[in-house]
Amino acid sequence: MTDNKSYTLGEIAELLNIKLVGDQLCEIHGLGTLKYAAPGQLTFLSNPSYINQLSSTKASAVIVEEKYVNLYSGNALVSENPYVSFAGATALFATPSKVELGVHNSAHVHDSAQLAENVSIGPNVVIEEGVCIGVNTTIGAASFIGKGVILGDNGCLYNNVTLYHGVTIGRDVIIHSGAVIGADGFGFASDRGKSIKIHQLGSVEIGDDVEIGAGTTIDRGAIDNTVIEHGVKIDNQVQIGHNCVVGAHSVICGCTAIAGSVTIGKHCVMGGASGAVGHITIADKVQVSAMSLVSGSIKEAGLYSSGTGHMRTGDWKRNIVRFAQLDSITKRLKELEKKS
Amino acid sequence: MTDNKSYTLGEIAELLNIKLVGDQLCEIHGLGTLKYAAPGQLTFLSNPSYINQLSSTKASAVIVEEKYVNLYSGNALVSENPYVSFAGATALFATPSKVELGVHNSAHVHDSAQLAENVSIGPNVVIEEGVCIGVNTTIGAASFIGKGVILGDNGCLYNNVTLYHGVTIGRDVIIHSGAVIGADGFGFASDRGKSIKIHQLGSVEIGDDVEIGAGTTIDRGAIDNTVIEHGVKIDNQVQIGHNCVVGAHSVICGCTAIAGSVTIGKHCVMGGASGAVGHITIADKVQVSAMSLVSGSIKEAGLYSSGTGHMRTGDWKRNIVRFAQLDSITKRLKELEKKS
Amino acid sequence: MTDNKSYTLGEIAELLNIKLVGDQLCEIHGLGTLKYAAPGQLTFLSNPSYINQLSSTKASAVIVEEKYVNLYSGNALVSENPYVSFAGATALFATPSKVELGVHNSAHVHDSAQLAENVSIGPNVVIEEGVCIGVNTTIGAASFIGKGVILGDNGCLYNNVTLYHGVTIGRDVIIHSGAVIGADGFGFASDRGKSIKIHQLGSVEIGDDVEIGAGTTIDRGAIDNTVIEHGVKIDNQVQIGHNCVVGAHSVICGCTAIAGSVTIGKHCVMGGASGAVGHITIADKVQVSAMSLVSGSIKEAGLYSSGTGHMRTGDWKRNIVRFAQLDSITKRLKELEKKS
Repeated sequence: MTDNKSYTLGEIAELLNIKLVGDQLCEIHGLGTLKYAAPGQLTFLSNPSYINQLSSTKASAVIVEEKYVNLYSGNALVSENPYVSFAGATALFATPSKVELGVHNSAHVHDSAQLAENVSIGPNVVIEEGVCIGVNTTIGAASFIGKGVILGDNGCLYNNVTLYHGVTIGRDVIIHSGAVIGADGFGFASDRGKSIKIHQLGSVEIGDDVEIGAGTTIDRGAIDNTVIEHGVKIDNQVQIGHNCVVGAHSVICGCTAIAGSVTIGKHCVMGGASGAVGHITIADKVQVSAMSLVSGSIKEAGLYSSGTGHMRTGDWKRNIVRFAQLDSITKRLKELEKKS
Repeated sequence: MTDNKSYTLGEIAELLNIKLVGDQLCEIHGLGTLKYAAPGQLTFLSNPSYINQLSSTKASAVIVEEKYVNLYSGNALVSENPYVSFAGATALFATPSKVELGVHNSAHVHDSAQLAENVSIGPNVVIEEGVCIGVNTTIGAASFIGKGVILGDNGCLYNNVTLYHGVTIGRDVIIHSGAVIGADGFGFASDRGKSIKIHQLGSVEIGDDVEIGAGTTIDRGAIDNTVIEHGVKIDNQVQIGHNCVVGAHSVICGCTAIAGSVTIGKHCVMGGASGAVGHITIADKVQVSAMSLVSGSIKEAGLYSSGTGHMRTGDWKRNIVRFAQLDSITKRLKELEKKS
Repeated sequence: MTDNKSYTLGEIAELLNIKLVGDQLCEIHGLGTLKYAAPGQLTFLSNPSYINQLSSTKASAVIVEEKYVNLYSGNALVSENPYVSFAGATALFATPSKVELGVHNSAHVHDSAQLAENVSIGPNVVIEEGVCIGVNTTIGAASFIGKGVILGDNGCLYNNVTLYHGVTIGRDVIIHSGAVIGADGFGFASDRGKSIKIHQLGSVEIGDDVEIGAGTTIDRGAIDNTVIEHGVKIDNQVQIGHNCVVGAHSVICGCTAIAGSVTIGKHCVMGGASGAVGHITIADKVQVSAMSLVSGSIKEAGLYSSGTGHMRTGDWKRNIVRFAQLDSITKRLKELEKKS
């Protein structure tokens, strides 16, 4: 899906603002990995363990750090951070499906909604009372924008996105299909065995430069708001409970489940399918590994894990029997230590 | 999003049917927590560990139990269960986005569908042949109601909800965006390495007073129905497999995965991101902690858990190596015990 | 929802191509289990542990293996694989909600899209530029088919399915509501604490005879494609990261989370809510148990597990304390062994 876009290396060097060592006029029509790139493609070296692939790559140019330029005889784009420059290159070749400029005639836009210039509203979109949408923002087919939502500039909502009433979203935000922002937090008061609904009166505030994956859900707060700060990146099928605060520039990988009232620090990484129990605080720069449960507050930066690694099920069954005896096993050990 | 609703304390006491000790005419225009409530807001004391916040709260009134009234000098609403009364108060201040009364002109409603009085059908809703919808029920934009669905009174479906053909739903049911009820259960017969589809001929029956979260999926039964009994509350992104029965008033927290043919008792709580393997029975009043797997039937009420707590990844790596040796470690201990 | 379909046993034997021992004219109007089937229903014996139910079943006929025919006095359909034959029988009685033939007048189909014969396009479907749709394919209400998608013959997409631009899908594929195929993979380059988007230039290729559950998400590749091979069956709410390859005829149960660049072999089974970390390879015929994490490559076929079984939370708390000490406990054991 690169739609035959192409650039000369000279153009790419200029667009990415990095130095070219080589042929300015070399035509680049796509991107590839060091190992699989074809002639006419641009690649990059970021992880030094792939240095030995430099000599054999078929790519027409490589983005490399200054210190590796000498190791490569072909066209080089020299970058302090080749992976970041490569990210820039992906933007040059991206050709996403675009919603047509303007409001599709099948969209339902409330008279009171304020649409800024250069907005694209797809087929069957519903925009309710009092909504404000910033310049250059695109909303895909059948998305639903509830009463009073504020959606910033340069936003990109794919199709079937839902924003419940009152949600506010910053600028440069991407939201993928099927995401639901602002549904009711899960709160009930127990009354003689029945669950009485706590109506959720807060909302959701999302900062700038946030990306939210397909099928992700972020609940509105009970009284105060749920908050996603600037630069947070959230993968698919993540659940964020009511009244959570996710600190700026944190990354939350797919299928993670965050219970209510969790405060996650800045620059954290929650690994895939990880979780956090409710009413806890996680410090800045914490990284939680895949499928680990944060079972209490974490006060210091660092790597954290729970669970066990995989093993043959036969071995595992023997070990989990022992796991269930672990406290008594330890006591038996203590007994022996006393005797010895 | 409180839309400037306001009530006098006298009105609130009457609406919640609880006693007021204090100023009948005090104006309340919102709700807050003990710690953060502002003047003009109502709060509550439910957890006794917050008693010391009573003296410093800025709220204009507090819902408290009789026994704590003396500890508070301001306006008090006296309740046997302050949290339940607070739940009632949230209902007074809730202002959800409402679908307009009547059938939106872009909705596709089959001629044979029966819509009771006072029904609200949003834009682009599809209602197929033979559907029956009860009084006061609201269906949000782009929701899909398949052939023969029966949907009870006072229901509230948000937008993009899917009910496959033949699903039946009781009264006072709330279903959030992106939920899918009645998709095919996951059943295949293995035929020389290929999976042959078992068409799912059952349906899904949902009782009264059930709430279903955003992105939750409940599969139709293979032959008999999948059943969700009265009063069950299901959070976001829960998956309930075919032929499960979830007992009345049970609570299933977000991202829980229930395999097929699981019977969950009444008044159970499945913690967030918990799971249950297929073809098991869980007794009434079982509570499963977050991210725990129920790996077999549970016959007695109580709390159950699996997994491990989180720890520094460095420590964790050393411990999981030992976990993988746990059976042999235990045998070594046994050897020593024999010798000693 | 069997819509009063009925067949004679003779017809069923012919349609399933198996032998009938009994009354050709016996009327069958539905299916049931051995235990609960009513007169007029057909059932099957697949698991030998249910043999003792043969004598008491009220079903009008049973699908059995040749060797068990003598144990049953009623009408028998004799099959080498009764469960596979039963799967065939479910197809006879299935009556799914059908989209009407042709293109619904509210659908938005781009002029350049190519629709083969006998296609059914539901209300509010959006079909973008350059899409090709094969014969007999059905697309449910409000589904979105992005630019350049190729969708094979005999496909069945339920409502609210999203296919991002450029996705290709084989023949005989079923996709349930809320599934999102081809959203951006989760890739960012870290630039001084900020996450710079790697635009995802690859796509998703799905083979023939694949089924994809409700709410499942399969991300497009970063450079190369994400690939789902022929015959793969994927349950609800599964997440498959960018650049994964899922081998032919593998089965992925509900809520499984597969990180990016994972290669899963052929004929594998990923149990419910299982997971795999990124950049690993899993051999053919591997089976992973429920809620287990594959934490590294698996080179040999077999059963694998991680985690622990459930236990009373009180016991569990004592044991996880010991788990956190497991390395030191093992060292203490080693000390004792030296002394003894």
